[in-house]
This record gives sequence, structure tokens and C-alpha cells, in this order.
Amino acid sequence: MLPVVAENAAALIVGNELLSGKVAEANLVELARTLRPLGVRLTRVSVLPDELEVLVREVRQLSAEHALVFTSGGVGPTHDDITVDAVAAAFGVRAVEDPTLAGLIRAAYGARCTPAHLRMALVPEGAELALSPDGAWPTPVFRNVWLLPGVPEVFREKLATVRKWVRGPAPFVSRAVYTRLEEPLLKPLIDAAVADHPDVEVGSYTRWFEPSYKTKVTFDARDAANVERAAAAFVERLPAGALVRVE
Amino acid sequence: MLPVVAENAAALIVGNELLSGKVAEANLVELARTLRPLGVRLTRVSVLPDELEVLVREVRQLSAEHALVFTSGGVGPTHDDITVDAVAAAFGVRAVEDPTLAGLIRAAYGARCTPAHLRMALVPEGAELALSPDGAWPTPVFRNVWLLPGVPEVFREKLATVRKWVRGPAPFVSRAVYTRLEEPLLKPLIDAAVADHPDVEVGSYTRWFEPSYKTKVTFDARDAANVERAAAAFVERLPAGALVRVE
Repeated sequence: MLPVVAENAAALIVGNELLSGKVAEANLVELARTLRPLGVRLTRVSVLPDELEVLVREVRQLSAEHALVFTSGGVGPTHDDITVDAVAAAFGVRAVEDPTLAGLIRAAYGARCTPAHLRMALVPEGAELALSPDGAWPTPVFRNVWLLPGVPEVFREKLATVRKWVRGPAPFVSRAVYTRLEEPLLKPLIDAAVADHPDVEVGSYTRWFEPSYKTKVTFDARDAANVERAAAAFVERLPAGALVRVE
Repeated sequence: MLPVVAENAAALIVGNELLSGKVAEANLVELARTLRPLGVRLTRVSVLPDELEVLVREVRQLSAEHALVFTSGGVGPTHDDITVDAVAAAFGVRAVEDPTLAGLIRAAYGARCTPAHLRMALVPEGAELALSPDGAWPTPVFRNVWLLPGVPEVFREKLATVRKWVRGPAPFVSRAVYTRLEEPLLKPLIDAAVADHPDVEVGSYTRWFEPSYKTKVTFDARDAANVERAAAAFVERLPAGALVRVE
């Protein structure tokens, strides 16, 4: 199955602790910044509690509507770690012990290894393992669902495996134009850019508390020539003195 | 309509910039930490791009399935600010200029006020305004949907308005037990706590890179006596020397 070419992806971030505010969510931005340069469009992120039925329904829907799904969290040894069960149930298969993962866990924990440790070797039956580029812990992949851990330090490590095996049809190219004008004054120029360059995604971001510029206008597409054309046309239309810089 | 008592809530966080990784999402944790002490359970967060049809469908579903919905973002003056349109369309009403908001905008911008500025006065027809406790900018509320801005500094200010008008049936009470044991070794004790205290939400969080403890076990419920009982029973069952502290 691997490597994978995917136009878009969704993320399912699991954990009561994120919704109660006990822990600040930290994985969304890391995943977004991994997928973007690969050319994969992240089009939905759902953050949900540790509730089996809720997760089963979500996995089914996200998997059907997106080329790839990345789950974050719920893969530890305790009662509230139910992501593997949810993915398995979403597709009507069992959660079974993967022999490779079980071997790695036994090797890591030695005599201290318990049945609870081995819960971390469970995968939806039929899952593949995506190998890490540095030979570290592999990542279970079932159909189009990648099961990543929730602990941010470990999640970030696993993104190396994503970078190894996943890419989009072509990378995104991005230009940012920084201006001294407020968004409402730029609006006619931005509207013109949107109308003239339908293949380019135009974004407009006000910085309320930034002295060096007021509004950043971004131009994104998979076709670099289109991006350059849209950004150049926008810069040409700016009134004198409004431009800070282009990046 | 105000004040509001709500058992649960969802958040709809809008913005291409969050999904492309240009901007790190920062409002989820602030909303979670606002709702929790009020006793409102946050049960879903959806992060979605600036696409009208996607947002309309999500608003409709979140509003039907939750007591409250908080939107974040998409309320500025430019083409990609479509949250008001999406909420209006979700309920089959028009987006109209609110006279109070329009007056505030005219007062703030004076002679510099343009039609683009006045786009920020649009609300779904029939929306109420939730007044800020300090007399600052009010927050549009349509049915059970609160429209909050996406800029984190401004979003946080608006949470004072949420705190003024929203509460849950009763606040949550929480205890955290910090232990020196790894999660797999704690699992039988945690499973016993889950089985013995079905009204208490038990969470277990490993810190992989923290010297002072290995696992934090949390006990949460709206009934303080139940929480104290569950935490005390768990602490009693810990092996000697395993307890670090209770908070």
C-alpha cells in the first residue's frame, strides 16, 4: 500500500483532557505543517472525547470523505485508550495483537512487561505497519487511517514516518504580501485578486498588535506560476507606500 | 434568552490558515478552560476551512446536537469571512446589518468607515447581542450559536462575555493524583476506580519527560463527594511509596 499519494486528509484528535482544558492541544499545527509542504490539503480536524460510539461514527465518516485520516491519541494502555477499538469497530474488524509491535514492547520492557503493556500492540486486524525512517517504532495504518500517538513529543517523531510515506499530487507554493493597510481598505484589491485568479487561494490576515504591518495577504496554489501572477498583480495595484514586503 | 444554562457545547473553529499551518490554533484551550469551571462540558471541536457549504452543514449539525455552539473566526471584513453567512444559511435566515454594531463601527472608524468595515456589523437576522461585562463590543448570539472572533487576543476578551451569561447545571470538581508508577502498572487500580465509580470520569496521563512523577490520574464529576470518594479509594490502593501528591 505504501507509499501513498493523497490530495487531502482529516485529523481525529482524541482526548477528554483536551476538551476539559487540562492539556493544551499541540498536534494540529504540527500535522498541518507536515502535510502542507507535502502538498496534502488538511480539510477537517475533529477533537473528540474518549467515547467509543462517537469515535466509531467519526472514523467511518472521516475515512469515507477524505483520502487519509490521521488519529492522534488514545493508543496507550488504559481504559480511556480506545482509538484502536474505534477504528476496528468502524470497519467491522477485531482489534488484534500485532506480533511485530508485541515483540518491540517485550524487548523494551523485558521482565516488567504486563498484559497492560501489550495492549499497546493492538491494531485493527489487517493493519499494515509504516516503518519509521530511523528504524524506530512503526506506525499502524489500517486502510486510509494512520494511528498516531497523542503525546506531543512522540507525535512529532512519528511525523517523520508520515513524511517518508505520504505525499500530495504536487506541493503547495505560497506567497505572502505584507502591507501597511487595514483589511477593509484592502478589500477591493483582495476581491479583485479572488475574482481574477480562481485557481489561487487568497487569504487575508490582520495583525492587531504588530507594529511592522497591518495586513498579510497570502496566495496559495499547487501551480507556482499562478501564485506568482496573482501576487504580482496584487502588489501592482497597491497604493504607493502600502507595501512592506513580499515573502 | 440570556443568561443560558447549558449542559454541553461544541466549538466550530474556522480558518484555512489553521489547516495550512500558517497560524497555530490557540482558541480551543482558552474556550475549554472557560467552560470547564462553569460546568459546561465541551464535547466536540471542529476545525474547518473557509468554505460556505461545509460550514453550513457543520453549523446545522452542531447546533442540533449540542446545547451551545461557539464559533471562532470568519467574522472580519474580507471575502474569506463567511461565518455569519454560514450561520444565517444554516437556519434559512438572511445576514443583516445590526444597528447597534453598525453604530459602534461608525463611532470607532469615523470618516474612515467603509462598506467593508460595516460588513463586521452583519448578523444572522434575529440575532441577540450578549453584552460584555465591561461595556466593550457585544457578541452576536443566534439561537444557540455564539459568534466569536478568531484573533486570539480578541477571542480571549470575548470569553468574559461567555463567563457572564453562560453556566452549566453545576461546576465540575476535579482531583489529580500524581504517582511514581507507569500507566501499565496502575491499570488494575484505574480499572477498579472506573468500575467502582461510574459517575466519576477517570483520566490517566503519562508524562514521558517529567522527573517528579510518571502518571497523573484524574477524577472529575459535578458531585464533589463522588470525586473525593473515588480519589481517596484510589490513593488507598496505591502501593507504598507510589504516591507523589494529590491536587
